[in-house]
Amino acid sequence: MTDLLDHLRTAVGAEHVLTDDADVAAYVVDWTGVHSGRALAVVRPGSTAEVADVVAACHAAGAAIVPQGGNTGLVGGGVPDSSGGQVVLSLGRMRTVRDVDPVAGTITVDAGVVLADVQAAAAGAGRLFPMSLGSEGSCTIGGNLATNAGGTAVLRYGMTRELVLGLEVVLPDGRVWDGLRALRKDNTGYSLKDLFIGSEGTLGVITGAVLRLFPATPRHATAWVAVPSVDAAVALLGVAQQHAGAHLATFEIANRQALDLVLTHLPGASDPLAGPSDWYVLVELAGASSEDGLDGALEAILGAAVEADLATDAAIAGSPAQRSALWALREGISEAQKVEGATLKHDVTLPIADLAAWASSIGPVLDEVLPGVRPVTYGHVGDGNLHYNLSSPVGRDDDLRAAERDLSTAIYDSVAAGNGSISAEHGLGRTKAVAGASYKSEVEVDLMRAVKAALDPAGLMNPGVLLPPA
Amino acid sequence: MTDLLDHLRTAVGAEHVLTDDADVAAYVVDWTGVHSGRALAVVRPGSTAEVADVVAACHAAGAAIVPQGGNTGLVGGGVPDSSGGQVVLSLGRMRTVRDVDPVAGTITVDAGVVLADVQAAAAGAGRLFPMSLGSEGSCTIGGNLATNAGGTAVLRYGMTRELVLGLEVVLPDGRVWDGLRALRKDNTGYSLKDLFIGSEGTLGVITGAVLRLFPATPRHATAWVAVPSVDAAVALLGVAQQHAGAHLATFEIANRQALDLVLTHLPGASDPLAGPSDWYVLVELAGASSEDGLDGALEAILGAAVEADLATDAAIAGSPAQRSALWALREGISEAQKVEGATLKHDVTLPIADLAAWASSIGPVLDEVLPGVRPVTYGHVGDGNLHYNLSSPVGRDDDLRAAERDLSTAIYDSVAAGNGSISAEHGLGRTKAVAGASYKSEVEVDLMRAVKAALDPAGLMNPGVLLPPA
Repeated sequence: MTDLLDHLRTAVGAEHVLTDDADVAAYVVDWTGVHSGRALAVVRPGSTAEVADVVAACHAAGAAIVPQGGNTGLVGGGVPDSSGGQVVLSLGRMRTVRDVDPVAGTITVDAGVVLADVQAAAAGAGRLFPMSLGSEGSCTIGGNLATNAGGTAVLRYGMTRELVLGLEVVLPDGRVWDGLRALRKDNTGYSLKDLFIGSEGTLGVITGAVLRLFPATPRHATAWVAVPSVDAAVALLGVAQQHAGAHLATFEIANRQALDLVLTHLPGASDPLAGPSDWYVLVELAGASSEDGLDGALEAILGAAVEADLATDAAIAGSPAQRSALWALREGISEAQKVEGATLKHDVTLPIADLAAWASSIGPVLDEVLPGVRPVTYGHVGDGNLHYNLSSPVGRDDDLRAAERDLSTAIYDSVAAGNGSISAEHGLGRTKAVAGASYKSEVEVDLMRAVKAALDPAGLMNPGVLLPPA
Repeated sequence: MTDLLDHLRTAVGAEHVLTDDADVAAYVVDWTGVHSGRALAVVRPGSTAEVADVVAACHAAGAAIVPQGGNTGLVGGGVPDSSGGQVVLSLGRMRTVRDVDPVAGTITVDAGVVLADVQAAAAGAGRLFPMSLGSEGSCTIGGNLATNAGGTAVLRYGMTRELVLGLEVVLPDGRVWDGLRALRKDNTGYSLKDLFIGSEGTLGVITGAVLRLFPATPRHATAWVAVPSVDAAVALLGVAQQHAGAHLATFEIANRQALDLVLTHLPGASDPLAGPSDWYVLVELAGASSEDGLDGALEAILGAAVEADLATDAAIAGSPAQRSALWALREGISEAQKVEGATLKHDVTLPIADLAAWASSIGPVLDEVLPGVRPVTYGHVGDGNLHYNLSSPVGRDDDLRAAERDLSTAIYDSVAAGNGSISAEHGLGRTKAVAGASYKSEVEVDLMRAVKAALDPAGLMNPGVLLPPA
């Protein structure tokens, strides 16, 4: 492997090939702390041509590659295994916004640009790049593309996949596919970009992309609404769609347990409503101008909701500061749960019509597995997507750790039985590669393996991620 | 092949295996009349299980399969070659709407359901299935899926791909992939559905789908606008987006030549404006309720357009009948052009910022190839997509036929040089399989061939379509 390291140093410069433990440390442990491994080296190329050189060298040497963006993934898809033989390919130096075209509504970026910087570049040109995630300050667009990231804007704008016009990808043998098209319509063959989006680094390394921009929506009308049940939240979604149509931008849910953790652990957080409620919805309308009548639509939604017993109370943001305070309640949950103690994350979708029944049936099942376990439930109810996370029974983190497998299996079994998905937006990574395959038909796993073998016959791209070893 | 025919008769019933020339005739010639072939048989299975039996039998016998929906394609992708050895697999008997769920916003259909019937089933449940094409009364949803069809609603709702949640596909070896998920979010592996959508029957036979429904938009505000140039039309699109936001549903363009043909050949068509114009735009806003302020927004758009010299005149539809009359001017072009005489169709996209310059530069180039050739230009300017069709110089159809290759090559070369696409929404079929590959990089063609070989190693699915023979 000395030859490979020499080749890599020649390709990207010796200072961008990290091998010392201290230098490598931040690249081999994931954000959750659950996955850690070892790396032959961390390589930080500065251009697409350098990525191609690195991949070709690894291909020739038979070394496996783990592409990595901001290392904010939640399923261990961007960190190496424990063999010490894998090369971590970090895109972190590729941070150029190549082009912004507000008239065409496109932005062309390197894979290593941080999501917040993509948003800012779009805003600087008077446009909106709508993708929005908790980790937007550190995740990279390349990671978002590789995982088909979701977030709070999916309801209105769709998943990452729907925001992409073209891709540039370094293939497993080091050749570069230039698919950087800026076209809304192009029916000239298989949709190759859709193969790479969501492939979690197992088919190639995404190095650049052309993304869609949208009209800016500087006007907002935002409310934090107490709702009696998940059932009521789903019904309220229908009411909101009816009154707000395409202006409905956000429809997020959280349970009281989630709000309690935020109020306990987040400095400055306060409950905007007088009394408690089992469930809350954060609803936001967004528009381009005052002509959009957002305030009137929001009032109509809330009026109809109270009349139909779908809401018991609501706080409307009267200023940008109040809007930020309501959003902080939703966005602070993940952090607050981390402070509280041991956490077990799940990212499930169900057909939205079945979501309420599922959410009310799963609690007792889990309590039987681990009495006292606390569901901290929140997520994108408008997409049928719940982050059905579990916190340990108070003070008993070890019990949660011991019961992890049984709890997750109970959740996944019930989700699969309900025609749902065990990964709505986080991907499969290492955490769920085996489970993901186990809930799929043999035909579907065969199809996925056929695709993998066709594009990466040597099996060197992020092995063990997305698909279990054959 | 007698064994195969016997097997097919057993699989679907003898009355659904057509071999007589008279019975087969309608299935072996395409709508344009350009492509005609011969078939070993036309097989009309009535269920997914029967499709699987048919495909397995053909696979075992080494017989190629040509899947066919409503046979309305424009590029010869659904008709057999001239060998007489291919089996046409018609989905026309699979016409069941399996399920409509207005709350979840989904409809599950057999592949052979006619598009207009999908629209009607959605409307019957108070919802909108937005896809809309000239051939919607006879094309099937399976064909729309296999070609990733476009149409007049792409601007607001996206291509077919964006309307699909799940698919059921019979694979080339006869196994059935049940991917009929009804989930908005599902990040558990490669997006297999996106491989089959737009693959033009070359990777398998789509037999069913779960599609997205949207809130109904019974309110419309519609105008036929005279604009001085393509440049002005593109600028007007920006104005319309600014004022109407997500209510902007349609933004179609047509040149005077196209309108003239409609006025000449379509009974009852009349020019809604007093004087002539080089170009016209059909703009429509759509919304759910009177609160959406569509009329006001349309007036604001037209006022701003006149003030900025982007429009010289406009007719606003004052009734549903007037709306239909304006739409008929746009939708009648293809038919009128057929009555006029020989036609050469092109379906191109360019980056929208470059569309105007391209449209004004290509005319003189073509006139040099064939003096007097008449561009009948129309299409989906909001998507950067022009149907840059050519009618023969008056009375000289043979000259157009003789110059076809040179004219198309001139158009495709200039589109490719401008980073456009030679097939925006029609697919490649047989007509453009060779051209499609010739404008792609070797890397991209290799990727497509690798995908094809992985899923259809025997090469029996619609050979010669989408990819040229190796």
